[in-house]
Amino acid sequence: MRLLFVGFGTVAQGLSELLIEKKDELNRKYGLDWTVTGIVDTLKGSAYNAAGLDLEAIMAMVADDHSISDCDDGCDWDALTMIAKADADVMLEMTYTDIKTGLPATDHCRAAIKRGMSVTTTNKGPLALFSNELDELARANGVHFLYEGTVMAGTPLLNLLRETLAGSEIIEMQGILNGTTNYMLTEMEGGMDYTAALQQAQDLGYAEAVPDADVLGWDALAKVTILANTVFGASLSPDDSPCEGITNITPAQIEAAQAAGKRYKLIGRVWRDGDVVKGSVSPQLMDLSHPLAGVSGGTNAMTITTDTLGDVTIVGAGAGRVETGFSLLIDLIHMVTRSAS
Amino acid sequence: MRLLFVGFGTVAQGLSELLIEKKDELNRKYGLDWTVTGIVDTLKGSAYNAAGLDLEAIMAMVADDHSISDCDDGCDWDALTMIAKADADVMLEMTYTDIKTGLPATDHCRAAIKRGMSVTTTNKGPLALFSNELDELARANGVHFLYEGTVMAGTPLLNLLRETLAGSEIIEMQGILNGTTNYMLTEMEGGMDYTAALQQAQDLGYAEAVPDADVLGWDALAKVTILANTVFGASLSPDDSPCEGITNITPAQIEAAQAAGKRYKLIGRVWRDGDVVKGSVSPQLMDLSHPLAGVSGGTNAMTITTDTLGDVTIVGAGAGRVETGFSLLIDLIHMVTRSAS
Repeated sequence: MRLLFVGFGTVAQGLSELLIEKKDELNRKYGLDWTVTGIVDTLKGSAYNAAGLDLEAIMAMVADDHSISDCDDGCDWDALTMIAKADADVMLEMTYTDIKTGLPATDHCRAAIKRGMSVTTTNKGPLALFSNELDELARANGVHFLYEGTVMAGTPLLNLLRETLAGSEIIEMQGILNGTTNYMLTEMEGGMDYTAALQQAQDLGYAEAVPDADVLGWDALAKVTILANTVFGASLSPDDSPCEGITNITPAQIEAAQAAGKRYKLIGRVWRDGDVVKGSVSPQLMDLSHPLAGVSGGTNAMTITTDTLGDVTIVGAGAGRVETGFSLLIDLIHMVTRSAS
Repeated sequence: MRLLFVGFGTVAQGLSELLIEKKDELNRKYGLDWTVTGIVDTLKGSAYNAAGLDLEAIMAMVADDHSISDCDDGCDWDALTMIAKADADVMLEMTYTDIKTGLPATDHCRAAIKRGMSVTTTNKGPLALFSNELDELARANGVHFLYEGTVMAGTPLLNLLRETLAGSEIIEMQGILNGTTNYMLTEMEGGMDYTAALQQAQDLGYAEAVPDADVLGWDALAKVTILANTVFGASLSPDDSPCEGITNITPAQIEAAQAAGKRYKLIGRVWRDGDVVKGSVSPQLMDLSHPLAGVSGGTNAMTITTDTLGDVTIVGAGAGRVETGFSLLIDLIHMVTRSAS
């Protein structure tokens, strides 16, 4: 399986570590024998070799802040040139997420699928905005288009929904889909005010300097939209669902909730209202007896209500270098062991 | 897919409801087109028709306390005779669990596999005692041997471990594997003593008149052994692991735990100690911040520690007519969509 890396940031490097570390095991257990033929990153440079790049050497160069373009196989191709020219079976889209436009990641996915490559991505932009178009394009081209890492990182929520709960009807999903705000709410319960909790989340690298995507709920909204469209077969855009973040929650509200034996959580929800699929993001007062109430810190969780099993809840990492890198590995294994539908 | 039901109790009836209700959907979505050719139950009678029984009519007869043997296709075959004579692709073993001997269920599984039938079962006896033998026998005969329902009913723990977390190394598992004792512990935290909590569990049908298998930890131990052998590839018998139930937990201990911000849970655990796989069942004091601490009532849960994702926790039903019946449906879908290994 010849891989093409588009984007070589944290997630791509986490995946590279796993691929190198598990190379023998992946081949033996799943028949997954990989080679990376191309890498392209706007900031870190590009390289291509149809016979395979030396991934370990490139990891070392990047760790030393050298440009990838300086290696023996270095080149100056941009992403679309690389996708047009490279010999590869799978394109891994790992560039920066733009939730508002989905670009340039969506263009990368379109180009790769049209060239007959399967695609796996952790990028929420293309999925929140163009999942139906890209799913359809992949079907038409007979390739895989997988995106386990777009929701709850490598915690296998999408696989659980699509494969493991096969035979169940999914009635509703509600969950904690943004680790940064869950971390902040946990700290606010411990006595911090909003500003201090945000500062701490920024100091720890959980929140960005401009924290809007997290604290206003946009990140959770992207994931709600992805679930609505890919699991419930809807055609929602993010603007179709009401979205409220955590910026208006006061210490007094948090104290009152605690006194009442409850806890605020920023809940993303997807459900069927008759024939219409609806989504929402908003702070909810959860009873302490609810499985989501006990999920603290940066962890994510989803409660899935089914016709056959009642509620099933999955709790796990929602971010992280290796955790998100692993989601791509799940998708690659899936491509080897299942046929494209 | 011609099905042979061995045992027609609660679980088999729960499955039958699902099969009837979802018949069109199963065929359309998964290509699972079923017919039941044989049913045999020690108490409820037997019936066989190579062209297919009328499952709805038999469900109605059983609801009215009529013997299945009185239907048009009725017969007097016992289970082994049925397995030897029936035309069927899959034998569903749903007889009563005997954790000490695994009989007669194990004999049913052996006979069916040797005749070239795939087998799915919810019966913990054969799995706790003979999983390696039966796995091997199924491999040698080129058939499926699946048992999702033996641990956490239809909550898809085994599928999560084997399929969805493929590519991860499982380092440790610990969980709440017995709903009856978890219900009792929750009630004891609410102020009941052990005797009253047991009585209430018995009144509600959670605990049996002789409650030893639950309260002494044997049921959890069977599940620990199944996980050790099928997920970690060990060869443990239940006697190899220390097992302590909840009978020695006093109200004073529960109060002291609450005062310390902790909670008692009966925890089944499987882990690697160097090259050796170990298991245990015992009450553990869990911090309230642990995902297992918040699991109350009859619910089950498992925290899986992996090399790639850290901890992943799944929470869901551990028993129930439809919930356990659904586990068999997961296995049947699996048989259609995957090849036997």
